[in-house]
Amino acid sequence: MAEDNARYEKGWETIKRIYGDVGEEVLESVRSVSPDLARYTIEFPFGDVYARPGLDLKSREIATIAALTTLGNSPRELRAHIHGALNVGCTREEVVEVIIQMAVYAGFPAAINGIAAAKDVFAQLDEK
Amino acid sequence: MAEDNARYEKGWETIKRIYGDVGEEVLESVRSVSPDLARYTIEFPFGDVYARPGLDLKSREIATIAALTTLGNSPRELRAHIHGALNVGCTREEVVEVIIQMAVYAGFPAAINGIAAAKDVFAQLDEK
Amino acid sequence: MAEDNARYEKGWETIKRIYGDVGEEVLESVRSVSPDLARYTIEFPFGDVYARPGLDLKSREIATIAALTTLGNSPRELRAHIHGALNVGCTREEVVEVIIQMAVYAGFPAAINGIAAAKDVFAQLDEK
Amino acid sequence: MAEDNARYEKGWETIKRIYGDVGEEVLESVRSVSPDLARYTIEFPFGDVYARPGLDLKSREIATIAALTTLGNSPRELRAHIHGALNVGCTREEVVEVIIQMAVYAGFPAAINGIAAAKDVFAQLDEK
Amino acid sequence: MAEDNARYEKGWETIKRIYGDVGEEVLESVRSVSPDLARYTIEFPFGDVYARPGLDLKSREIATIAALTTLGNSPRELRAHIHGALNVGCTREEVVEVIIQMAVYAGFPAAINGIAAAKDVFAQLDEK
Amino acid sequence: MAEDNARYEKGWETIKRIYGDVGEEVLESVRSVSPDLARYTIEFPFGDVYARPGLDLKSREIATIAALTTLGNSPRELRAHIHGALNVGCTREEVVEVIIQMAVYAGFPAAINGIAAAKDVFAQLDEK
Repeated sequence: MAEDNARYEKGWETIKRIYGDVGEEVLESVRSVSPDLARYTIEFPFGDVYARPGLDLKSREIATIAALTTLGNSPRELRAHIHGALNVGCTREEVVEVIIQMAVYAGFPAAINGIAAAKDVFAQLDEK
Repeated sequence: MAEDNARYEKGWETIKRIYGDVGEEVLESVRSVSPDLARYTIEFPFGDVYARPGLDLKSREIATIAALTTLGNSPRELRAHIHGALNVGCTREEVVEVIIQMAVYAGFPAAINGIAAAKDVFAQLDEK
Repeated sequence: MAEDNARYEKGWETIKRIYGDVGEEVLESVRSVSPDLARYTIEFPFGDVYARPGLDLKSREIATIAALTTLGNSPRELRAHIHGALNVGCTREEVVEVIIQMAVYAGFPAAINGIAAAKDVFAQLDEK
Repeated sequence: MAEDNARYEKGWETIKRIYGDVGEEVLESVRSVSPDLARYTIEFPFGDVYARPGLDLKSREIATIAALTTLGNSPRELRAHIHGALNVGCTREEVVEVIIQMAVYAGFPAAINGIAAAKDVFAQLDEK
Repeated sequence: MAEDNARYEKGWETIKRIYGDVGEEVLESVRSVSPDLARYTIEFPFGDVYARPGLDLKSREIATIAALTTLGNSPRELRAHIHGALNVGCTREEVVEVIIQMAVYAGFPAAINGIAAAKDVFAQLDEK
Repeated sequence: MAEDNARYEKGWETIKRIYGDVGEEVLESVRSVSPDLARYTIEFPFGDVYARPGLDLKSREIATIAALTTLGNSPRELRAHIHGALNVGCTREEVVEVIIQMAVYAGFPAAINGIAAAKDVFAQLDEK
C-alpha cells in the first residue's frame, strides 16, 4: 500500500507539474466510470514512466506528441500534451515542427489533424 | 531543376550526416524499383523537413523513434533511425526511454518490438 | 436466393437478439446510401459469424469490445456492442474490465476512449 | 526558388482541378498555424505525386478513397476526396463500391464510416 | 445450400480469373486450420464484393493495393494482389504509382514497404 | 519497495499460471536491453490488470487474442496468448472463432494472419 501510494503521489505530482489543471479534466471523466483506470493512468505512465531519470520531460513530450499525432485516436489527449510540452519548455515552433515531421511517417492527414489540435491549444492560450 | 537539385543535395547531406551508410542501404533497395520514390524520400523528409531550423536533430530523431515504434510497420527503418539518433547525440539510455514510453501510448507489444530493434542496433555496434 | 434469405434472416434475428433497436439505427443510416453494404453487414457478421456455434455470444461481445476499443475508429459501433454485451449476459464490470485491459495492448488513450463510450451507454441506461 | 514555385504552381493547379473550392477550405485552416505544412501539402502530394503521368486522376482518387477509408483518421479529407473523385470522372456508384470493398480489408466499421462520409457529400451536392 | 454454392462458385471463379494459382496458395494455408474462414474468404470478398458490377476489376485492384499498402499488415496478400492487378490490366508503372501515392496518406515507411513487395513480384515474374 | 515486490510477485505468478515457459521467453529478450520494461510488463499487465477479480482469465485471453489479431503487430505475442488461452480453458475451436470474428472488425488479412499464428501454436502442441 505504502509503495503504491508512493507511485500514485509521484505520478500525481508529475501530472500537475506538466499539465496543470488540464490533466485533471481528462482524468475526472475516466474516474467516474473506472476509478481504477484513472489510478493506473496516474501510477504507470506518470508515476513509473515520465518520472524516470533517463530522459528530460521536454523530450518525453516531444515523443508523446509524435505518438499521439501518429495514432490520431485521441485529439483531447494530444491537446493536453501540447499544453504539457509548452509547460516543460517546448516552444510553439518546436511543437509545430514535431507535428509537421509526422507527415513523413504517419501521412499528411495525420499531420494536418495534429496541426488542428495545436491550433486549438494556441488559440485557448492566446485568449487568456 | 536548379531548386530541386538544391533540395536533393540538402536532403542527401542530411541523410549522410544522420545515418552514415545505413540510410543508403534502405534507399538502394527502393531505387531499383522506383527511383522517383527514392528521390522523394531524400527531397521531402530530409531536404524539406529534417533540414528545417525550428527543431534540433536530436529531438527530431526522438520524435521519429516514437512514431516508428508506434506504427510498428517498419523495423528496418526504426533500426536506421536508432543509428541516426545515436549519431546526432542521443545516448542509448535515451533511445530506450523513448521506446519504453511508447508502452503507454501504443501498448506493450509495440514497445517490446521497439526494444527488439534497439537490441539489434546495440549488438551491431558492439560487434564493431 | 433462398439461401441468401436464410443468411439474412438468421443475421437479422441475431442482431435483434443482441442489440435490440440499437443495431437498427446504425444500419438505417448505411442503408440510405448503400443498401447492399447494410445487407452484407447483416449477412456476413451476423448471419455467418456471430451465428456460429463454436463460441457463446457473451465471449463474442467481449472479443468485439476488445477489437473496437483497439481500433478506436467507431465509437458508435462500440457503444452498440456495449449495449449488446450487457444484453447477452456481461455485467458492466466485465465490460469495463475488457476496456481497461486494452490499455496494455492498444495504449492508455484507446482505453480511456473506450471508457468514455461505456460511460455514455451506462448513463443512457440509467436514464431509462 | 524558381523550381519550388513551379512545384507549388503545379500543385495548386491540380488541387483546383480536382477539388474546386473544397481543397482550399482544408488548407486554409492548416495555413493559419503552419503555412509551411500548407505549402508542403500543395507541393508534395499535388505538385509531385498527383501530377505524375503514370496513373490517371480517376484511379488516383480511387486509391486515395481506399486509403482514407482504411485509415479512418480524417473524415474531412475523405469527404474532400469524394468530391474530387466525382469531379474527375468517378460515378457515385464507383465511390460507393470502393468503400464497400474496404469492409474486406479494413473491416466493416471502417467501411460503414466511409459510407457516412459519402452520404454527407452526396447530400451536400443534392442540395445545390 | 444452393445459393451458398453459387456464391462460392462465383468467388472461386473470380479468384482464379484475377490471381491464377497465387490465390490458391494463400487459401490453402488458411484451410488447414479453418476451412470456414477459407470458405468465407472466397464467398464474401470474391463471391459478393469483387463480383459486383459497379466497378471494374482493375479499379478494384488499385483500391486493394492502396488499402494493403496503408495497412502494412500482410505483405503476402499485397504481393498476391499485385499479381492480380497485373493480370487484370494494370501496368507495372500503375502499380508503382499507387504505392508511391500512399506515401502521402500512410507515410513513407508504408510506401517503401509496398515498393519492396512490388519488387519481389516483378522479380518473380522476370525469372519466368 | 515491499508493495512493488508484491505487484511483481503477483504478476510473475499470473504469467506462469497462464503461459508456462512461453512467457519467460518473450520477457528474457526484453530484459537483456531493458530490465525495467520487462519488470513493467510483469507488474502492470499481469500484476495489476490480469490479476483483477472482475473478469475470468478465459475471457481476458479472448479479449487479448481479439486485440492482438486486430493490431497485427506482434505475432510472437499472439502465439504466446494462444498458448495462454488454451492453458486457462479455451478450446482450440474457441480460439479459432475469435480470430475468424476479427475478419469483421479488422479485415480479412488480419484474420488470416491470426489463423497462421494459431496454426503454428497448434502444430507445436501436436508435436509434443
